[in-house]
Amino acid sequence: MATSSTQVPEVVVLRLPLYVRALTQMRDDGTQVVSSQQLGYRLQMTPAQIRKDLSYFGRFGKQGRGYNVEFLLQVLGQILGLDRRWPACLVGVGRLGRAIISYPGFAPEGFHILAAFDSDDDQVGKTVGGLKVRHMARLKETLQQERIAIAIVAVPAHEAQTVINDLIEYDVKGILNYAPVAPQVPMSVVLRNIDPVLSLQSMTYYLLDENYDT
Amino acid sequence: MATSSTQVPEVVVLRLPLYVRALTQMRDDGTQVVSSQQLGYRLQMTPAQIRKDLSYFGRFGKQGRGYNVEFLLQVLGQILGLDRRWPACLVGVGRLGRAIISYPGFAPEGFHILAAFDSDDDQVGKTVGGLKVRHMARLKETLQQERIAIAIVAVPAHEAQTVINDLIEYDVKGILNYAPVAPQVPMSVVLRNIDPVLSLQSMTYYLLDENYDT
Repeated sequence: MATSSTQVPEVVVLRLPLYVRALTQMRDDGTQVVSSQQLGYRLQMTPAQIRKDLSYFGRFGKQGRGYNVEFLLQVLGQILGLDRRWPACLVGVGRLGRAIISYPGFAPEGFHILAAFDSDDDQVGKTVGGLKVRHMARLKETLQQERIAIAIVAVPAHEAQTVINDLIEYDVKGILNYAPVAPQVPMSVVLRNIDPVLSLQSMTYYLLDENYDT
Repeated sequence: MATSSTQVPEVVVLRLPLYVRALTQMRDDGTQVVSSQQLGYRLQMTPAQIRKDLSYFGRFGKQGRGYNVEFLLQVLGQILGLDRRWPACLVGVGRLGRAIISYPGFAPEGFHILAAFDSDDDQVGKTVGGLKVRHMARLKETLQQERIAIAIVAVPAHEAQTVINDLIEYDVKGILNYAPVAPQVPMSVVLRNIDPVLSLQSMTYYLLDENYDT
């Protein structure tokens, strides 16, 4: 059922977590079977798009009978690796980093922040979100000991690329970047940027048509 | 030079802010002219893709001579409405909402949070990030007075859809949603979701190939 990641367009992979979230809500509401129409309505996508996306990973539904919600959830979870435990670290424990480490939404989904780092000596040694902040000099040692493959970066913009270079050198393969920059990473590293300003800037384009300035 | 928003694919609009950010960095570094190759290298896109994206909005570069950075920035800023002031409000002043309201990155880009709301009587009347928190009952009145078209939603997941329905009823046209749900909005409203868990979940798919579990 699994297929090589190179065959699946990234845009499809980016949508799979949306399916998982919608299906989880449906399951929790007691839904056992869902059609691509119903799922499409929920996600504001066409049923054809959903059938095409899922077809990359096998045959999940019988024609005209819809998808078994529980089974589809289980398979999508396996495809995405959501059935595993993912150790992660946080770099940067300023205001944003503290909000991230206190966010209760990561652990239930399998993402466990096991270590926090900062380059500021005033922060090192303090306890934030239950973790004692470590100096950046201990990055390599900690990443290897804890087998950490995912790093969350919440440092100021001008430090981000240097920090990310270090993380990559120490074999981190996935980076969730909150710094408002576009870091350069090699093809072997998966980068996701969390950037509310970019989201707002791609929104105002559509608001201009509404002529809010008049 | 401007063109109807219905003709430009959303995926192109989503990339324009990335161009703006990269070009701003280049300008600040003293670059005056940039080729689609250089821009593509920076953004990890093909030059052809960049030329195609920009072609939706007119002709910016002379063949073989590259783009004038300052001019391209100015035009993209106008297209996206970045040359304006965008009043915004925040709904939900819990831990996340407080981090958002304290984030220094919005105002320099033209996004000004002018009002903050919460449904919790214990929060109402307190001052957060320089704003006195208002009760949700004052939403309609405030949105109209302040001509607010953009709302940032940082309420718990189970409250998000109700809050968003209210915002839409009171004529908010752009919603930046931090709640970990997939809200339903009509076509006339622009929704952007900030969801680090979804970003991580679309990352682990690629990390599985690296066999971190073995």
